Amino acid sequence: MSNPIAAIILAAGKGTRMKSDLHKVLHPIAGRPMLLHLLDSFAALPPAATVVVVGDRREQIESALAGTGASVAVQDPQLGTAHAALQAKGALAGFAGTVLVCFGDCPMLTADTVRRLCGALDAGATVAVLGFRPRDAAAYGRIVADPDGNVLKMVEYKDASPEERAVDLCNSGVIVAHARDMWRLLEAVGNDNAQREYYLPDVATGAIAEGARVVVIETDAAEVAGVNSRAELAGLEGEWQAQRRRRAMDEGASLIAPDTVWFSWDTELGRDVTMEPNVFFGPGVTVADGVKIRANSHIEGATIGAGCEVGPFARLRPGTILGEKAKIGNFVETKKAVLGEGAKANHLTYLGDVSVGAAANIGAGTITCNYDGYFKYRTEIGERAFIGSNSALVAPVRIGADAIVAAGSAVTRDVADGELRLVRGEQLVKPGWADRFHDAMRKKKAAEKKA
Amino acid sequence: MSNPIAAIILAAGKGTRMKSDLHKVLHPIAGRPMLLHLLDSFAALPPAATVVVVGDRREQIESALAGTGASVAVQDPQLGTAHAALQAKGALAGFAGTVLVCFGDCPMLTADTVRRLCGALDAGATVAVLGFRPRDAAAYGRIVADPDGNVLKMVEYKDASPEERAVDLCNSGVIVAHARDMWRLLEAVGNDNAQREYYLPDVATGAIAEGARVVVIETDAAEVAGVNSRAELAGLEGEWQAQRRRRAMDEGASLIAPDTVWFSWDTELGRDVTMEPNVFFGPGVTVADGVKIRANSHIEGATIGAGCEVGPFARLRPGTILGEKAKIGNFVETKKAVLGEGAKANHLTYLGDVSVGAAANIGAGTITCNYDGYFKYRTEIGERAFIGSNSALVAPVRIGADAIVAAGSAVTRDVADGELRLVRGEQLVKPGWADRFHDAMRKKKAAEKKA
Amino acid sequence: MSNPIAAIILAAGKGTRMKSDLHKVLHPIAGRPMLLHLLDSFAALPPAATVVVVGDRREQIESALAGTGASVAVQDPQLGTAHAALQAKGALAGFAGTVLVCFGDCPMLTADTVRRLCGALDAGATVAVLGFRPRDAAAYGRIVADPDGNVLKMVEYKDASPEERAVDLCNSGVIVAHARDMWRLLEAVGNDNAQREYYLPDVATGAIAEGARVVVIETDAAEVAGVNSRAELAGLEGEWQAQRRRRAMDEGASLIAPDTVWFSWDTELGRDVTMEPNVFFGPGVTVADGVKIRANSHIEGATIGAGCEVGPFARLRPGTILGEKAKIGNFVETKKAVLGEGAKANHLTYLGDVSVGAAANIGAGTITCNYDGYFKYRTEIGERAFIGSNSALVAPVRIGADAIVAAGSAVTRDVADGELRLVRGEQLVKPGWADRFHDAMRKKKAAEKKA
Repeated sequence: MSNPIAAIILAAGKGTRMKSDLHKVLHPIAGRPMLLHLLDSFAALPPAATVVVVGDRREQIESALAGTGASVAVQDPQLGTAHAALQAKGALAGFAGTVLVCFGDCPMLTADTVRRLCGALDAGATVAVLGFRPRDAAAYGRIVADPDGNVLKMVEYKDASPEERAVDLCNSGVIVAHARDMWRLLEAVGNDNAQREYYLPDVATGAIAEGARVVVIETDAAEVAGVNSRAELAGLEGEWQAQRRRRAMDEGASLIAPDTVWFSWDTELGRDVTMEPNVFFGPGVTVADGVKIRANSHIEGATIGAGCEVGPFARLRPGTILGEKAKIGNFVETKKAVLGEGAKANHLTYLGDVSVGAAANIGAGTITCNYDGYFKYRTEIGERAFIGSNSALVAPVRIGADAIVAAGSAVTRDVADGELRLVRGEQLVKPGWADRFHDAMRKKKAAEKKA
Repeated sequence: MSNPIAAIILAAGKGTRMKSDLHKVLHPIAGRPMLLHLLDSFAALPPAATVVVVGDRREQIESALAGTGASVAVQDPQLGTAHAALQAKGALAGFAGTVLVCFGDCPMLTADTVRRLCGALDAGATVAVLGFRPRDAAAYGRIVADPDGNVLKMVEYKDASPEERAVDLCNSGVIVAHARDMWRLLEAVGNDNAQREYYLPDVATGAIAEGARVVVIETDAAEVAGVNSRAELAGLEGEWQAQRRRRAMDEGASLIAPDTVWFSWDTELGRDVTMEPNVFFGPGVTVADGVKIRANSHIEGATIGAGCEVGPFARLRPGTILGEKAKIGNFVETKKAVLGEGAKANHLTYLGDVSVGAAANIGAGTITCNYDGYFKYRTEIGERAFIGSNSALVAPVRIGADAIVAAGSAVTRDVADGELRLVRGEQLVKPGWADRFHDAMRKKKAAEKKA
Repeated sequence: MSNPIAAIILAAGKGTRMKSDLHKVLHPIAGRPMLLHLLDSFAALPPAATVVVVGDRREQIESALAGTGASVAVQDPQLGTAHAALQAKGALAGFAGTVLVCFGDCPMLTADTVRRLCGALDAGATVAVLGFRPRDAAAYGRIVADPDGNVLKMVEYKDASPEERAVDLCNSGVIVAHARDMWRLLEAVGNDNAQREYYLPDVATGAIAEGARVVVIETDAAEVAGVNSRAELAGLEGEWQAQRRRRAMDEGASLIAPDTVWFSWDTELGRDVTMEPNVFFGPGVTVADGVKIRANSHIEGATIGAGCEVGPFARLRPGTILGEKAKIGNFVETKKAVLGEGAKANHLTYLGDVSVGAAANIGAGTITCNYDGYFKYRTEIGERAFIGSNSALVAPVRIGADAIVAAGSAVTRDVADGELRLVRGEQLVKPGWADRFHDAMRKKKAAEKKA
């Protein structure tokens, strides 16, 4: 790949079938907007410049692109895909390498495929188009090519002859050419058709008419699958997840029910990780070797150390860092919680804005009270500390090493190392009271039933 | 459809393969008994009368039909499907319109199809039967018809010639005729067969023998799928859910994993609703626009306002009404709970028989104590109130607007607007106690191990 | 089956594709190591002796086999499958019956199939091999046999002629012969091949060369499916679960979403059990008739009585025994918890090391404090006792029959029958305090924003 690449990503369609206020290309796959999946893939090239052509809801796109280095060109009015691509010309003024045109709603395109397309130019083609052979060619535009991949004709389905319709090689729309050719060919595209639109495939048609060499590169249908509806979005999500699950298993994770584990685009897994059914990963999760994640766990922004056990019914939120062999059990939520080696919080607990020392034991029903309605405060729990069940630790507060908090305590002041803190009312005993209460209530119930 | 319709639903079979104490036609699809799905569909006609023919466990059926207007006819002894249909004659005495006979265990039949059947009568047929072409025709009875849909012969599989078995048009059993024809033809059916039973398809056979016109109307195999076992029940549930998920996505909901969202028969969804995996809807749920439902949520009888966020691990029970942008977080249960705009209960909380004012914040581990073993009591929480973590609100109790309940408090008396309520024992400090305790316990452990 | 059987299970492969520290044959299906699934199946024969041939990680296998009666033979170095089988000869010295050789990573082999193989020997064959016809024969070794199942030739795929490759009958590797024949034929196997290995199918080849009768018995591909990767492990798990779900439905359980219920190898289910989606069974669970298990429940080592309702979001751990019509609700964990008839724990509760009397009511947020960091202690709750919400019961402690514990109490001393126990601090009231606090905090927030 001798030339630098500039990527034009078309994203000006209205996406009305999505029935959404969110721009179509920002709908997520594996927790990441489709458009950014493309940018992630292209980072392996990387492109010299990336221009996203937008129409409606430009501000949503600009906000999503912040920090990526990609720029935006506006298409208004919207006169077809060739017209859209041409709007990027200004942003790429002076660029003398290869121009790629692709689609923001086709997020599975890989850098490898782009390289193969560019390779065709290196090998002498003026234009290279990306073709695929779907199971059902349906109404896709067809590519008529010779056995060496030289394109003889690009034809829209509705204009195709029966022989042309019998061709199973279809046009993905993705196209590359050197900048000088791309701009010239785009500008030559006409709109002499029923919709009065300028169509991108006419770039190839124009090159063929010039006698230039146009080549088709083939790929899997899955790589060029597009999203026009929520059902198609779910379909691509499913395809992405299936690939990721296969990779996880190949790398040494055991998934009892692979179809019920959902990865994020950036999940990192160690070896000998085992997962029960129904584990959901949000972004920012790293799981070390030998971790066991039990059923129905929901994990985001967490770093899980080697040999940890998580769940079932655990919820790890961003800022959770679990040391080796730590345990987070059922109905436990953590957020900005750093646990030392072997620390445990096994039952019905909320740990927020907290550090927990190694081997500390957080009893069932413990709540760190980290919020007063306005600000958040931190709790620090020392090594080997024992927090009795059903306790409230009112932050800011520090529990010392080896300290014990008695069950049911609401702790508002620091507890020193090795100290016992007991916060509890007097045990008020009323012998026979409950028996009398039961009698009275049964009578009241009976009276109500009569009435 | 010029004539009124009376529907006869056959439900007298024993359903032994279900191995259940519950009548087969009362087993639910999407939370609603199969029999009632049929009644729901027919409501679009609507029928002038509906008669359910029952055998065993009549009282279960009658109880399920309470309030629907449908009546019951008893078949005893059970001498076949034609005999069953005839038991409805008394209940329909004097009815002069079209009689439909269908099956309580085939719950997917639509009003549209019934209209098409009736239309055939309007167009001159004496009898119309509903046919389908299954992937595997197996042992279904076959319908031999000319290309215009005129039925030449109805034939049971076991009596069919090889040529007849090659026919792929099968008999669903569903049949319509004008009342005068239906009764006459039913009464003419004989039982000259191995089982000595009166078979419903003989109505069509009888009409053909009379020289009357019998017409077949075709539909999808899915619409006439029947339930004879729990596996078939699960299969129909799956089919129903798949259709409902598709509709949800078409209407603008994003389902990351559509196969793991289970709708109820009456779930209503707004636009731009997004759902993580594993969301279960019981009956009576309405979800407004822009709601985000996170993984592992279980929702019944709830109204969820626009922009709310629910879950993960939320359980909304009947009587839950969430105002706009309210938040219900993990391990939170609500029941008869009305939350104002922007109110939050994010962690490990039980809200039962409660109203929560706008922008109130319910801390982690809050429990409304609404039950004394005999009666339920209400809790009222004012706007912008702040309930500290791990508090118990002992109903009946009222927490004022802007009031604060300190963490760990068990509140038994009303809290005024703007007031702080603190219920907490003294902090008892025992320096060094925990260290001594650890020493003693370690020695005891060591002694136990030796012994 | 006139002869006793000895089973040789080969388990010496390294299983490198599993990328695991755990021996391949110990990876679980439905919670039970593959190797033990084989032993369970063979228990129906039962074998006179079972020898597992191991290489690497012998100690893992020995530990897993403890108490099963199976012994271990070591193959070192590893010179092929015939060599591996021969290592069992010493352990079977003097054994004069039928020897079966099978594979620790093919755990679905049934006793019925083994009986059919042995039957072939009874009918005069010297060797019987197990064949199958996969959808894609791929590179499996082929079995060339006459229509009566007499094997003419065993051929490795790479050595097969085009005609032989066209044969779709493949070799599973499973083989039986009388001990005298097996040892003689194994010892005669040579290693004149590219890998210099001794191959098990050469036992059959050797017998054919001797003019002895070798017979092929056929079975389903699923029964001889092997596990070489985590993906194949997940595939077999899926197959096992699908079979188990089908059986559950056949026996009268309703699964709304069968694909989301995961059984353990030993789960026992009654009739009219209904399950919402996402129920996970660990080992040791028995469920009686008429139980309803709601969504997202996780159940291990529990006995659930007739008419109980469990979940949603329930976690039952080992030692849980629920009496008839008991209820365990959402976000409730039980461990070594015995509940009497009609007892209820509906919300956000931890019940560990506890007995709960019939009809007792455990309020929301109740925690049994059963652990002091060193030892576990028991809680006993009497019949009809009422534990108020958000209470901590500090074990060892006994709550009497009909006793009431007030909400928010931390109970450290026994409560007598019919007694009320109230443990609660004074209600400290600070009128206007919250209003002043809100003012101060709002100012602080505003100041922060400016800064």
